[in-house]
Amino acid sequence: MKKKGILIVVSGFSGSGKGTIMKELLKKYDTQYALSISATTRQPRVGEVDGREYFFKTREQFEKMIADGELIEYAQYVENYYGTPKAYVEQMLEEGKDVILEIEIQGALKVKEKFPDTLLLFVSPPSVEILRKRLIGRGTEDEKTVEKRLARAVEESAGIENYDYLVINDKLDVCVEEVHSIIQNEKFRVSRNINFIQEIRKELKSF
Amino acid sequence: MKKKGILIVVSGFSGSGKGTIMKELLKKYDTQYALSISATTRQPRVGEVDGREYFFKTREQFEKMIADGELIEYAQYVENYYGTPKAYVEQMLEEGKDVILEIEIQGALKVKEKFPDTLLLFVSPPSVEILRKRLIGRGTEDEKTVEKRLARAVEESAGIENYDYLVINDKLDVCVEEVHSIIQNEKFRVSRNINFIQEIRKELKSF
Repeated sequence: MKKKGILIVVSGFSGSGKGTIMKELLKKYDTQYALSISATTRQPRVGEVDGREYFFKTREQFEKMIADGELIEYAQYVENYYGTPKAYVEQMLEEGKDVILEIEIQGALKVKEKFPDTLLLFVSPPSVEILRKRLIGRGTEDEKTVEKRLARAVEESAGIENYDYLVINDKLDVCVEEVHSIIQNEKFRVSRNINFIQEIRKELKSF
Repeated sequence: MKKKGILIVVSGFSGSGKGTIMKELLKKYDTQYALSISATTRQPRVGEVDGREYFFKTREQFEKMIADGELIEYAQYVENYYGTPKAYVEQMLEEGKDVILEIEIQGALKVKEKFPDTLLLFVSPPSVEILRKRLIGRGTEDEKTVEKRLARAVEESAGIENYDYLVINDKLDVCVEEVHSIIQNEKFRVSRNINFIQEIRKELKSF
C-alpha cells in the first residue's frame, strides 16, 4: 500500500516569491508533488484550461459545491468565488502525492481545521527592504499599490505564529531545496507513523 | 550573533543502533554537533578520560550538583548516579552547536520539561524480527538476556508518542542522513524564529 501524501499550505507576503518557489518545486519533483487546483466562478482567460489552471464553475454549481460540503475552504473576492475542491486533493493524497495549496491565512486555518495533519508553511523575504524592492522591481505596481501591499503584509505578518515552518526566500534554488526537505522530513513525525508504531508494539508483545 | 543550537534527545530500543548512528553523525558533522557528556559516580574504566567519556564525580560532589540544580536530569542505576550537567549543554548550545543527549524516556521527558524546545527523536529497527536478530547477533547476550531486552522494548514502545520524530534504522548511512536532515530542518520551525518574525513586523510597521 502506498503511503498517503501530506497536505501542505503555503502562504507568504505578496512579493515573497512563493509562487515561483512552488513552480520550481513542482518542476523539479514532479512525481512527488501535486498542486491543488482551485474551483472558481470567474471567466477563464485566454489559454486557461478547465481542470488545469482552475475548475471553472457557474455560480449555481459553486454554491451547490458549498452546500454539499465539497470544498475544503472557499472565499469570495470582488464578484467571484474561489475554493479548494476536496475530491481532487483527497485523490492526490491517496496516490501518495504531497499536495500543495497556495492560499492565504484565513483559508489556511480552515484547511487545518478540516485536515489537522496539514503542514503550514510561510514564506518571507529576507527583509522588508528587499520585499519593497521586489514589489517596486516588478514595475507593474505604482507607489500607492506597493504601499497597499506592504500594509497588507503587516496584517499577514500577525498570523505567522499559526504556521509550522518559516522559510526565508533569499536564493531561489536554496529555498526550493529547503521547502522540499522540510516537507519530506515531516514524514518522520511520530504522529504520521502511528500505524508502524502499533505494528511494532504488536510484534513485540507476540514474542 | 551566532544562532543558538538545538537540544536533541535520542532514545530507542536497545539494539536499534542509536549509538552507532550518533557516533557517525558526530564524525561526519563534527563542527555542527556536540554529544552531551554525562556526570557519573561510577569508577572510570581503563582508557576513560574525565571530561571526555564522563565527568567523574564522587557521591558527595554529585549530590551537591543535584542540590544546586546543576543537572538537567539524573537517575540512579545499581549503586551509581548518572546525570546530565546543565552547564556543559548550555555552553555548547550558546556556541551554536546542536547538542545530543542519548537517554531513556524518563530522562527525555524531564529534559523536555526543563527545555521545552528540545527535539525528541526515537530510533527503531525496521521490525521486531530484525531487532531480535541484532540482539542475538551481538553474541554477547544469552537467550535470556535477549528476552529481557525485548521485554524492556515493550515498555519503551509505550512511550513513543511522546517523541517528535521516529527514524527507522534500516541502512546506517541513510539513517544518519535522515537524522541530520530532521535536526537541521527543525531550524525552520516558526517557534524557533520568533526573533526574525518580530524584526520583520517592526520593519513592516516602520514603512
